[in-house]
Amino acid sequence: MKLVESVPNFSEGRDEEKVIKIIEAAQKYEKVKILDWSMDHDHNRSVVTLIGEPNEIENALFDMVKVATELIDLRTHKGEHPRMGATDVIPFIPVMNTKMEECIEISKRLGERIGNELNIPVYLYEKSATSPERENLSKIRKGEFEGFFEKIKDPKWKPDYGPSEVHPSAGVVAVGAREYLIAFNVNLGTDNIEIADKIAKAVRHISGGFRYVKAMGVELKEKGIVQVSMNLTNYKKSPIFRVFEAIKREAQRYGVPVINSEIIGMIPLKAAIEAMKWYIQLDDFDESRVIENKILNTFFE
Amino acid sequence: MKLVESVPNFSEGRDEEKVIKIIEAAQKYEKVKILDWSMDHDHNRSVVTLIGEPNEIENALFDMVKVATELIDLRTHKGEHPRMGATDVIPFIPVMNTKMEECIEISKRLGERIGNELNIPVYLYEKSATSPERENLSKIRKGEFEGFFEKIKDPKWKPDYGPSEVHPSAGVVAVGAREYLIAFNVNLGTDNIEIADKIAKAVRHISGGFRYVKAMGVELKEKGIVQVSMNLTNYKKSPIFRVFEAIKREAQRYGVPVINSEIIGMIPLKAAIEAMKWYIQLDDFDESRVIENKILNTFFE
Repeated sequence: MKLVESVPNFSEGRDEEKVIKIIEAAQKYEKVKILDWSMDHDHNRSVVTLIGEPNEIENALFDMVKVATELIDLRTHKGEHPRMGATDVIPFIPVMNTKMEECIEISKRLGERIGNELNIPVYLYEKSATSPERENLSKIRKGEFEGFFEKIKDPKWKPDYGPSEVHPSAGVVAVGAREYLIAFNVNLGTDNIEIADKIAKAVRHISGGFRYVKAMGVELKEKGIVQVSMNLTNYKKSPIFRVFEAIKREAQRYGVPVINSEIIGMIPLKAAIEAMKWYIQLDDFDESRVIENKILNTFFE
Repeated sequence: MKLVESVPNFSEGRDEEKVIKIIEAAQKYEKVKILDWSMDHDHNRSVVTLIGEPNEIENALFDMVKVATELIDLRTHKGEHPRMGATDVIPFIPVMNTKMEECIEISKRLGERIGNELNIPVYLYEKSATSPERENLSKIRKGEFEGFFEKIKDPKWKPDYGPSEVHPSAGVVAVGAREYLIAFNVNLGTDNIEIADKIAKAVRHISGGFRYVKAMGVELKEKGIVQVSMNLTNYKKSPIFRVFEAIKREAQRYGVPVINSEIIGMIPLKAAIEAMKWYIQLDDFDESRVIENKILNTFFE
């Protein structure tokens, strides 16, 4: 069985009835499952996590965008989180027996349908991007909904699909394929935020660290400690264990212990297996030798 | 979905046709899958690994035992491995959404049917054992097929189910529930077998080490190194990572490096997750947050 994950973000975080209607649009697909969804009042934004068979998840996402376009009006939308569309962004992530290339194809087919059938300008981002400056979502989103009416006139920002005019109420949308993102935090036995900042700087890509690590120092005031808070944007190339060991070594430099660490949300099996393999020095082992994974691939082909 | 594993051992390792007929008896059950099977000529024994829905795997095992009873005659059986029955031993192991108690119940129901319907004396062993001296399989099997005609007359060795006389051609059988067993070896950068023996002694239960570790030193002559070869009989209580770290520390004592390690066969997801958690100091994490496991439990209930 092939499975793809998608984590669409919708610009509605206050009216639960609307969010549920968007989710219901996906629930009629038998081979699509909602793993999780959440609303954020301050951000005025909701995030849904779905997993499904490639064709069905593509259709489910189209139906969700259609409902979101009917229910959400960006002309009256206010929230802390930057946004440019009623459906703001739709990433596709390969999770089981699928390759990045297949997710890129799904994103392109869905983008074309959203452009043609719903009249919303579509930007392909990350691995689906048609030029380097469109890889980074925040660069596409810069100026937000309100700024896009001007931005879209710039030939550099001609949409990949759909009309060359912003949809009056639904704005524009970014669709793309990306790697699974792991949110990983390491807690330090100190309340000195400077140390967390220095360690974050040492391990993050932008200041000379690991290629696929974004990091910043964060104060956890109620606990009286600080944290190195990270996104690992490619856990295969900048793996959890290597980043963790680097942080532990940096913390030693300041005489500070690592208290514990936390993973927010879910991880792919491979991320856990690679950590085990590295620490107990296994050379010949992979996910196919985990019973639950074998069951998944044997019982459900 | 509930799943149980079973790894029955049959006393036929030379006639492939017979072994395939035994396996075919299980293949007619839709919710039972053969994960693996192997024959050993010298041992004259075959081992089959199945996973299945609790009721179906119980019925599949009964059918396999029935076919093995028809095809295998222990009066003419010779092989290096000790054996007491045509079907020698049937363990049941909880693998998905099942508890040890359920495996104990399955073993008892199957044992009763084998005793009553096939007229084979049955001994419950390991977690299913009805007295402490029946927990250990090798104690039950002592004397083997040939010795059992006398042994069974001892009131201490009255079978748990079935007749009080050995089946003339199929002998007796042990049925029981047990924990998943992990075969784990650590390779050392030396050809000195004494060091491997000393480390094995340090970590194994029998000589003062971990409660659920069996270990011995082994020479890998073609590689010019030695190995600490282990069975972890309860990976939850004597976990891989703790045993590995103890071995690494013992090896340091002799100035010997750990070159690498190997896991033979498969492991449960939990064993890998616990290793990752320990090394990267995760406090709040479990298998339910691994995507593949979530898929398994969401798509296939």
